[in-house]
Amino acid sequence: MARRTTRVDQIAAHDRLTQLRAELSRDQLTGFIVPHTDEHQSEYLPPSAERLAWLTGFTGSAGAAVVLQDEAAVFVDGRYTIQAAAEVDPSAFALEHLIEMPPWKWLKARLKPGDRIGYDPWLMTSAEVKRLDEVCRAAEATLVGVTGNPIDHIWTDRPAPPLGAVTIHPTELSGEEAQGKIGRLQASIADAKADAAILAQADSVAWTFNLRGADIAHNPVALAYAVLPADGKPSLFIDGRKLTNSVRATLADLAELHEPAEFTGSLAALGREGAKVLLDPKGTAAAIAAAIRDAGGTVVEGADPAELPKARKNDTELAGTRRAHIRDGAAMVRFLAWLDGAAASGEIDEVIAADRLAGFRADTARRDGSELVDVSFATISGAGPNGAIVHYRVTPKTNRPLESGSLYLVDSGGQYRDGTTDITRTIAVGVPTDEMRDRFTRVLKGHIAIATARFPVGASGAQLDTLARAALWQAGLDYDHGTGHGVGSFLAVHEGPARISKLGTVPLEPGMILSNEPGYYKAGAYGIRIENLLVVTPAAIVTGGDRPMLGFETLTLAPIDRRLVDLSILSPAEIAWLDAYHARIGPALGHLLDDEERQWLAQAAAPIGD
Amino acid sequence: MARRTTRVDQIAAHDRLTQLRAELSRDQLTGFIVPHTDEHQSEYLPPSAERLAWLTGFTGSAGAAVVLQDEAAVFVDGRYTIQAAAEVDPSAFALEHLIEMPPWKWLKARLKPGDRIGYDPWLMTSAEVKRLDEVCRAAEATLVGVTGNPIDHIWTDRPAPPLGAVTIHPTELSGEEAQGKIGRLQASIADAKADAAILAQADSVAWTFNLRGADIAHNPVALAYAVLPADGKPSLFIDGRKLTNSVRATLADLAELHEPAEFTGSLAALGREGAKVLLDPKGTAAAIAAAIRDAGGTVVEGADPAELPKARKNDTELAGTRRAHIRDGAAMVRFLAWLDGAAASGEIDEVIAADRLAGFRADTARRDGSELVDVSFATISGAGPNGAIVHYRVTPKTNRPLESGSLYLVDSGGQYRDGTTDITRTIAVGVPTDEMRDRFTRVLKGHIAIATARFPVGASGAQLDTLARAALWQAGLDYDHGTGHGVGSFLAVHEGPARISKLGTVPLEPGMILSNEPGYYKAGAYGIRIENLLVVTPAAIVTGGDRPMLGFETLTLAPIDRRLVDLSILSPAEIAWLDAYHARIGPALGHLLDDEERQWLAQAAAPIGD
Repeated sequence: MARRTTRVDQIAAHDRLTQLRAELSRDQLTGFIVPHTDEHQSEYLPPSAERLAWLTGFTGSAGAAVVLQDEAAVFVDGRYTIQAAAEVDPSAFALEHLIEMPPWKWLKARLKPGDRIGYDPWLMTSAEVKRLDEVCRAAEATLVGVTGNPIDHIWTDRPAPPLGAVTIHPTELSGEEAQGKIGRLQASIADAKADAAILAQADSVAWTFNLRGADIAHNPVALAYAVLPADGKPSLFIDGRKLTNSVRATLADLAELHEPAEFTGSLAALGREGAKVLLDPKGTAAAIAAAIRDAGGTVVEGADPAELPKARKNDTELAGTRRAHIRDGAAMVRFLAWLDGAAASGEIDEVIAADRLAGFRADTARRDGSELVDVSFATISGAGPNGAIVHYRVTPKTNRPLESGSLYLVDSGGQYRDGTTDITRTIAVGVPTDEMRDRFTRVLKGHIAIATARFPVGASGAQLDTLARAALWQAGLDYDHGTGHGVGSFLAVHEGPARISKLGTVPLEPGMILSNEPGYYKAGAYGIRIENLLVVTPAAIVTGGDRPMLGFETLTLAPIDRRLVDLSILSPAEIAWLDAYHARIGPALGHLLDDEERQWLAQAAAPIGD
Repeated sequence: MARRTTRVDQIAAHDRLTQLRAELSRDQLTGFIVPHTDEHQSEYLPPSAERLAWLTGFTGSAGAAVVLQDEAAVFVDGRYTIQAAAEVDPSAFALEHLIEMPPWKWLKARLKPGDRIGYDPWLMTSAEVKRLDEVCRAAEATLVGVTGNPIDHIWTDRPAPPLGAVTIHPTELSGEEAQGKIGRLQASIADAKADAAILAQADSVAWTFNLRGADIAHNPVALAYAVLPADGKPSLFIDGRKLTNSVRATLADLAELHEPAEFTGSLAALGREGAKVLLDPKGTAAAIAAAIRDAGGTVVEGADPAELPKARKNDTELAGTRRAHIRDGAAMVRFLAWLDGAAASGEIDEVIAADRLAGFRADTARRDGSELVDVSFATISGAGPNGAIVHYRVTPKTNRPLESGSLYLVDSGGQYRDGTTDITRTIAVGVPTDEMRDRFTRVLKGHIAIATARFPVGASGAQLDTLARAALWQAGLDYDHGTGHGVGSFLAVHEGPARISKLGTVPLEPGMILSNEPGYYKAGAYGIRIENLLVVTPAAIVTGGDRPMLGFETLTLAPIDRRLVDLSILSPAEIAWLDAYHARIGPALGHLLDDEERQWLAQAAAPIGD
């Protein structure tokens, strides 16, 4: 998917910059901010929202650009510095580090009194605008929300917004009628002393109305907004062309259906009524709050009311995810068995492996009478040093063979109608070094510490994160990413509000699905990550204990490479965990394997003490 | 120190309330807030600032009262609910939980439009005033900063402010000339783009000017303010009666000396010059920011510039604290040896034990050619169920004998000129139950996990806190306090900014001294806490590792009761830590013991495996 900088691209980059600057001049702007998002603050974008890629060439999943009249910069984080250097024309854009030198800081050093910096208020949140506005004011410059994105004026072959078909997510899979969910959210809106709430994020809308869509790769959501009054029928703003008659009829029972073009008018109407409208300032376009306020309404800042209920999976969703994980685990076992035989040939590379894994996922779903709707994100298939690039995405240029004496890291997942999966395994190709085994085993110790953690009701992911790192820290090692993220139920593979990270301050609650993925990365050499999904188990008093405690059930079922385990640094309890984990796999998913695969699994999952 | 409610007290409480309400009426106030602090936001107060105790009878170290015309309440946290119930007249004051129902929340439920709630701006910080002001505004009430505390008008026998003699803390102990410290702070004030900074907390003033005082029990500080200009000579506001001629001469070289009464005028002068003045909104009286702003100055909110430099102890201070800990450890060994023989008699109670311990501290200091200046806080001497009260303070009424089959918890410390100590030991009296041993050993596992922690540069105490709890959590247990607090160098036993707690977001830095004190409390039965002081060790690359890591050195030297250790739940590495820790004690402090004490130590510190 990534591109190389060619002479043609350079002409294109300069040409587009020149055109954009002309647009800005017409609007009396001295600069413009180009974030990587869409009108729903999505992580994965429809092609119509890939403005950053169109303007700069950079195709990563996070970043921004700022264009001034005499200079321009692209901002990417550490995951993407190598990719950005290959994709972005350096004669057009400087490359900056998104975290160390974010756009607001870069602007702060350049703003002059009288500057007018434009932004698209549909592509930035109120929280983001607030900070930029402070920077501009301090420099006696002005931050200007534009009407109509200037890039859209010059992007003549911009794709149309997506029109993926909407389906109804049945109660057999969602576990709760949409009507019931709406009622619960309305009660919480009333509790927040608001008259209505805005659902701006596509997965919140999908969860609330039990709908699924196909507008964005890997995320089965439909781009749509909803307005939920504390009392009365909600309004859903969605392109009618995405709806079959039957879907339309189902949704019309739940909500007034409107075209997206009517959304701003409805916000203004709420404002004119003097309504207090709840919205999440960190997840909602600034244009929405502005439309409400400009018409006389009041914005109540608070969490998206669907976020927490969506994160707490009900028993039906949990039963679904367990089925999905059996199916997905079987696909992983088949892949690992194939790889074990094939890798020795020296003819397997990252692309072949990733394609083969997708094939096993699709085929195993069919065997199970199910369907792989999509992969849940672009597979990370990293051989040798590529495994050390945390968000690596294979391209023809970077593709490497799996070589003997190296490690292969594969991070992948599936979207099934009953659940979303996300798993990482690190596999020894040939004989690993002692250092690789030491590092792998320390990562495994961290993984086991999280899998077996018990913690009081009210504890947050921030309180658990260090358990995953302590064994690495003892050896002077660490990893530069969080330990776990929330995962949706046939929804986004990255979902809030809880996470296992030093920033994860939201208390963990029963039913939340989180990843458990400590790692270790040696730049230029190899990468290690072991990832399973977990579900937070119900509160219970431990025998002999005196407080209700929570814990985790591991959902993911696939062998962890025993050849990479250094038994000498595992405790008896850790060995027992690994053996018990491996012992679960065959009985759970053996029926989806053929004889040869079953035999392979028997040895791959044999007790490690033996 | 605590009082029982008697008929006389009840009359006094009602009488004082009546008088206060009359004062409030005269000032057109409908209510008044009485916090537990002084003009320096001190934790321990001089008698002249014990307004909360005078008005309500409550003598705990944290709390507040709010008095309205028709009701009044005292707010205390969970540590003090039992004590407050015994001390406060329930017919005068309702008792509320300081955390669950803080004064602002209690007021919020009672405020009526037009209410005028008074507060003393010298006794509340800007941060506290800001929140209360929001609550009042929302209720269309007014928060009124009073001039002159109305309690002082009716407290006719209020003690005079303290006049403890000031001494100079010599460079042999401080490790840095005051002139150098002042220069460092001035550089940081300039970095913060401020013209001057206010030092409002007594320990910041003491550290900066290398002075010590005797105004407050247990804290060798002098109540004083300082104004540090980014450039030029500082001003020190201190009662001249505390200064000998020689101390005055030394301080006059460093600062312009002023009487405290001149402080407000100096703030106003700064304001009139249009100065930008740095102060910590969480640690500085609101009156100070108001005086600057009212005169036209600008307040720059930021950390107290002395807080972080004070927390990073230099090599001289660390050498001093090591000496203090040898002396203090010898006193503890002598106490524990005495207790081991004496407790069997059944005639030892909490008061006798605490007195004896203070005696051993004073005597051992003399043996060492040193001096116990004070204990570093009121000793917590808790037998049996009293040990489960986290901040227990023995009174004649609550005093219990040490009974066979129970645990005895003693938390104490000393102020020596070369260092401040703080240690808790839990001792088996007679034969402990299996449950006691299990709990004690889990607390010990947490203590060892902190003592042996290694962590990357930049990690905070919040990232370590869970290591101290994991073994308790596994058994369904926990404790409701932080794991560690900062400790000063012959200064406050509780010092910021770092701590080991889920709220401790400040990165740990080499030289910081912190306590390591996990615990377990079974209400009505027993309490367990094991506390040593630690110092953060310098950053180093671990052999084979790839990042600079920090760790801890344990400063405190005294045996941990082996009779309470359940070997079966300790790992070999934990047993090795305990044995190695015990092996340090004799060689370090044996020279301060007599033969009998040395023999006792030999068996108490023998390897546990034996």
